[in-house]
Amino acid sequence: MNNFNFYSPTEFVFGKGRENDAGKYVKKYGGKKVLIHFGGQSAQKSGLLDRVKASLENEGIPYKELGGVKPNPRDSLVYKGIELCRNEDIDFILAVGGGSVIDSAKAIAMGAVYDGDFWDFYSGKQPEKALPVATVLTIAAAGSEGSGDSVITKEDGMLKRGAGSDVLRPRFSIMDPELTQTLPAYQTACGATDIMAHVFERYFTNTTEVEITDRLCEAVLLTMVKETPRVIADPNNYQARANIMWAGTVAHTNIVGVGREQDWNSHGIEHELSALYDCAHGAGLAVIMPAWMEFVYKHNVMRFCQMATRVFGCQMDFENPESTALAGIKAFRSFLHSIGMPINFDELGAKREDIPALVEKFGLGDGRTGGFVHLSSEDVAKIYNIAADAQL
Amino acid sequence: MNNFNFYSPTEFVFGKGRENDAGKYVKKYGGKKVLIHFGGQSAQKSGLLDRVKASLENEGIPYKELGGVKPNPRDSLVYKGIELCRNEDIDFILAVGGGSVIDSAKAIAMGAVYDGDFWDFYSGKQPEKALPVATVLTIAAAGSEGSGDSVITKEDGMLKRGAGSDVLRPRFSIMDPELTQTLPAYQTACGATDIMAHVFERYFTNTTEVEITDRLCEAVLLTMVKETPRVIADPNNYQARANIMWAGTVAHTNIVGVGREQDWNSHGIEHELSALYDCAHGAGLAVIMPAWMEFVYKHNVMRFCQMATRVFGCQMDFENPESTALAGIKAFRSFLHSIGMPINFDELGAKREDIPALVEKFGLGDGRTGGFVHLSSEDVAKIYNIAADAQL
Repeated sequence: MNNFNFYSPTEFVFGKGRENDAGKYVKKYGGKKVLIHFGGQSAQKSGLLDRVKASLENEGIPYKELGGVKPNPRDSLVYKGIELCRNEDIDFILAVGGGSVIDSAKAIAMGAVYDGDFWDFYSGKQPEKALPVATVLTIAAAGSEGSGDSVITKEDGMLKRGAGSDVLRPRFSIMDPELTQTLPAYQTACGATDIMAHVFERYFTNTTEVEITDRLCEAVLLTMVKETPRVIADPNNYQARANIMWAGTVAHTNIVGVGREQDWNSHGIEHELSALYDCAHGAGLAVIMPAWMEFVYKHNVMRFCQMATRVFGCQMDFENPESTALAGIKAFRSFLHSIGMPINFDELGAKREDIPALVEKFGLGDGRTGGFVHLSSEDVAKIYNIAADAQL
Repeated sequence: MNNFNFYSPTEFVFGKGRENDAGKYVKKYGGKKVLIHFGGQSAQKSGLLDRVKASLENEGIPYKELGGVKPNPRDSLVYKGIELCRNEDIDFILAVGGGSVIDSAKAIAMGAVYDGDFWDFYSGKQPEKALPVATVLTIAAAGSEGSGDSVITKEDGMLKRGAGSDVLRPRFSIMDPELTQTLPAYQTACGATDIMAHVFERYFTNTTEVEITDRLCEAVLLTMVKETPRVIADPNNYQARANIMWAGTVAHTNIVGVGREQDWNSHGIEHELSALYDCAHGAGLAVIMPAWMEFVYKHNVMRFCQMATRVFGCQMDFENPESTALAGIKAFRSFLHSIGMPINFDELGAKREDIPALVEKFGLGDGRTGGFVHLSSEDVAKIYNIAADAQL
């Protein structure tokens, strides 16, 4: 096990109706003037925004609103939010939405207290401070409600890049599983795929003997394998929604990743797809992650056997471990297909002829990535090709 | 799943040599004058105290010392610590030791900023504030390094009682698995038993459909079942020590307990044993917890089957689930025996004739406890009797 720090100071406020306490928690964490940041019309139509605003009014806390965050959130709205925070003396940002809204809020939070261009933090610079951010989560997926991470797309060139710092960890996150019951099946499945991907990025490691972290990874994965089909079958299944929502947070506070090297190449490879085609991140991962697995599994067959047997219930073939490893990958892809996810380029709406451009944008040049297997540009191209052709 | 809040703001600083950063982290969390609280001579002999003191001196942070904490920590030393904090304007308490030292530090932290008797907080009163506490952990067991809990024994009447509040959560906890390598096998096994008990107290619940929490519980238990025999066989196995140490924290931040009713009756029943005989808490739990399981398993046979199959690898007997439930309890007791724990009163040094006095002190009278099965005084007596007679 490697040395590590684990720090997850967010207060998670979980359950039915908890969004009505938003004002109370903003007060507890010192917010005096709030920017409510949100996405499209669903938060308005459902009455959620009205309830959040009422809870702020109950506590006498003034607020401004900035809606319009899109999936794969853009830098243009971030600049607008920064301007608004400065002009209105905002001291607290409340993101009401999913990962895109929260990531956009985090970008605004850094930019509002920084003299330079906020994009610096998405180009490698570490932020020293940020306005406090909190969330009312409406989609179980990105884990941004419990993480110090944010991903933003720069419209000029459609560059999708990430920032990460403990100063971005939300002060509190309100998580009402009922809010996710109106999500269409496709978006629900995209979220589930993202959650599983966050675990797999940490599961495939070259660090040995980190049993506790392995087992915690498997705990989240087993939960997702059980609960996802239940919400696809019945969108109003509160218990399954609740399990998935909390699993999504556990998957990304990094409690399932401590003490070891992590991978994250599938996320990087996928980001080029969602940046180019504006497809859902989870759908892109459904296509990329099993392809990545097929490309790398020979690097550590036993680890893939562990996934196959512990997560997907495959029988271990002791005479032919490789067949067990492949059976696990196949089971994962079948699971993704069963919840309605695309499994190849065609189903995703991606094009084989774009692969050279995708590899180019991934930007390795003659270098290599880090992670479980250090990939070259040629390797990345092979993974895109496996993904393009994949079948059940 | 029930509504819940989860809040674990402690920064965990984990790995080899991290105790040399103690001063750096005290500074980060605002400590200006520190009370170093510790137990017996082992922290002195091993050089650990000297290293911690040197790290404070490096940062120019003055400190006072108060040693002498005993297992099942006593109120008399807490009063002494409170006095010292007040006289010396201490503003930060650094506990160097195991659960007893940390629990004692937490009691001092509350008492030092309270006008009344600190024992009020162990009699049901909620503290509003406390001095900041941090830890350098030397024993994987109590989980106090990541919890808001503290248990103290009042010498007058040997009353063992608990307090709990978020204000007691350590600011940081330094966890170097190497520090636990000098622990004798018996103490190591006591700690492992305590860790497993912290999970089981949360595992046996009447709340249904909390798969994620179940799976996280099982993740910790599976880790303990794998790693504990490895450290008993080889006390210097760093990797096994590291897995157990982190599992002990995960077991008690409450991440394995959210969203559901919990039990905690075995802890209460055991506390009377360690208060009366001054035995190790973990050893008492090894005797009590399987006895409690045998008394309650009929309340939910399937839940015990889940434990048996998922944690102890028993085959499910679908024609006779009860036999699987009993096989799981038997496997747990055999496991405890295999790591050197007592399994009945004789082996623990407890006396059957004290049972009426233990029940009396447990203090239910004609009432009942809460939890998985609501126990009467008569039930508690039956559990002590099962524990007294237990055999493999």
